[in-house]
Amino acid sequence: MGSSSALPTSKRFPPAHLLNVNERLFLIDCGEGTQIQLRKFKIRFGKINHIFISHIHGDHIFGLFGLLSSFQLLGRENDLHIYSPGELREIIGFYDKYFVHELKYRVIVHPLGYKRKKLIYKDDWIEVFSFPLKHSAPTCGFFFKEIRQDLNLKKEGIDKYKPDLESIAKLKKGEDFYTADGQCIPNNKMTQPPWKLRSFAYCSDTAYDPSIIKAVDAADILFHEATFSHQDEVIALQTHHSTAVQAAMIAKLSGSRKLLLGHFSSRYKEVDFLAQEARNIFPETYIVNDGDIYYVERERSTDNS
Amino acid sequence: MGSSSALPTSKRFPPAHLLNVNERLFLIDCGEGTQIQLRKFKIRFGKINHIFISHIHGDHIFGLFGLLSSFQLLGRENDLHIYSPGELREIIGFYDKYFVHELKYRVIVHPLGYKRKKLIYKDDWIEVFSFPLKHSAPTCGFFFKEIRQDLNLKKEGIDKYKPDLESIAKLKKGEDFYTADGQCIPNNKMTQPPWKLRSFAYCSDTAYDPSIIKAVDAADILFHEATFSHQDEVIALQTHHSTAVQAAMIAKLSGSRKLLLGHFSSRYKEVDFLAQEARNIFPETYIVNDGDIYYVERERSTDNS
Repeated sequence: MGSSSALPTSKRFPPAHLLNVNERLFLIDCGEGTQIQLRKFKIRFGKINHIFISHIHGDHIFGLFGLLSSFQLLGRENDLHIYSPGELREIIGFYDKYFVHELKYRVIVHPLGYKRKKLIYKDDWIEVFSFPLKHSAPTCGFFFKEIRQDLNLKKEGIDKYKPDLESIAKLKKGEDFYTADGQCIPNNKMTQPPWKLRSFAYCSDTAYDPSIIKAVDAADILFHEATFSHQDEVIALQTHHSTAVQAAMIAKLSGSRKLLLGHFSSRYKEVDFLAQEARNIFPETYIVNDGDIYYVERERSTDNS
Repeated sequence: MGSSSALPTSKRFPPAHLLNVNERLFLIDCGEGTQIQLRKFKIRFGKINHIFISHIHGDHIFGLFGLLSSFQLLGRENDLHIYSPGELREIIGFYDKYFVHELKYRVIVHPLGYKRKKLIYKDDWIEVFSFPLKHSAPTCGFFFKEIRQDLNLKKEGIDKYKPDLESIAKLKKGEDFYTADGQCIPNNKMTQPPWKLRSFAYCSDTAYDPSIIKAVDAADILFHEATFSHQDEVIALQTHHSTAVQAAMIAKLSGSRKLLLGHFSSRYKEVDFLAQEARNIFPETYIVNDGDIYYVERERSTDNS
């Protein structure tokens, strides 16, 4: 929803991203104007229960105050979980004191660690890990990964062997089926191959850091900041940001499938050339624009393992 | 730049208005996304040295943090004057502590009073007055009025009588001219009628309050909030806001020339009917949309007084 860096432009809002996992919405960073973008793109606010804040720089959180206020005005009652640097507690306390006096819903801040990759959230569908980035403030990236689900049954196998409920539960977990006369029917005769587990990795803001390669582990989609062009690599280094080429190296070395570039410096009037720089190293590179949507389609594995 | 009330919509940003007086820019309220609108409408940030904040509610100031940060990133050195409730000092102190650590330009907060109409700013061209509004937090409206300038000379009079520099200075101030032989040439033979003094009044947020009538004193343009329709007058009363009809009454009774309505509740999908309600009382009523520009043309007075 926001693809600029610290200085927004007329077409690029500050950083904000929304991940939809089976209609659960995860907001990642919340730059100024995020609630306006949510309106524009017709996203239902109420579905957002989890917000991930990479670091406490204004361009990544100045949209939070307006969003919290709008939740209040819209009568929110659900808890709101925010995964962020611990300072956010004080910032929200200050906001509460001056601007709402009493929030009618709970805001639970889960402080991030910055030493290693760490599981910070889990539900029935996904796990979310934070991992350290290399920036001028304590900063984390986030890795969202689907959890292995039960296997789906094959209609023809079920119709033929008519397993009882207990056997069905075992089949879904990957066990083989035994008929009344003791014949073993291998699991893959009775079930579909599982869905491949999809993943999304988010890296903003950060200098080039090879430790990210392992953390983003073959992501289906890797979002990596590309604030600068290759020719401005020195400025990237000085400001703890990355070039498009560096982002491409992380994508390539991590075995990721698709690279999205964002967080562009406002010094570049157009940014397509940044994708060109990256594609020399990693062809599946795309420039993100505010409002772009990327899907990761579900695919069957080639086997049941 | 922002015509919504507390909940922005996809087309209306939160409150923010810009007044241009001879290319000096005065920002009035600063809702979330103001800097994005400034970019969109190609306004040069650096020209803004004075910001007027009506009250400390989030929808009127959440754009301030991003704007201050962008000033910093753009290398601002000029002092920034903010006319606002005194609390803003603490809020900016907090912002400074968490988000910039040290602003490279001075922010001077001028606390408003809430008892009576008061001169709060003056330069060579205009005076600005604050006056109390009636809202759920201490709130002021603002009245911008041009100052009487020196008279312009008439070429034919100057060519004919060739006054010396001292006499010219007196003519510009409205005095008559005396020739070497003591003949009195009336001032209006030597000078143009002065420009009429233009004015702009800003009233948001407020319940209907007849004391506003005197404060906005025959404004060329009166901006008055019209959060609600006549049929929602009870809600207006409960929330300390106005209806379009009430705004029209203030416009009519104050002898203002043009009424702009804004700060619309997001409950109305379209708001043209609010202008219709107001026009029954005050025909020169207009709905504002984000990006609209209204001009007050300069007119000559009919006499030199």
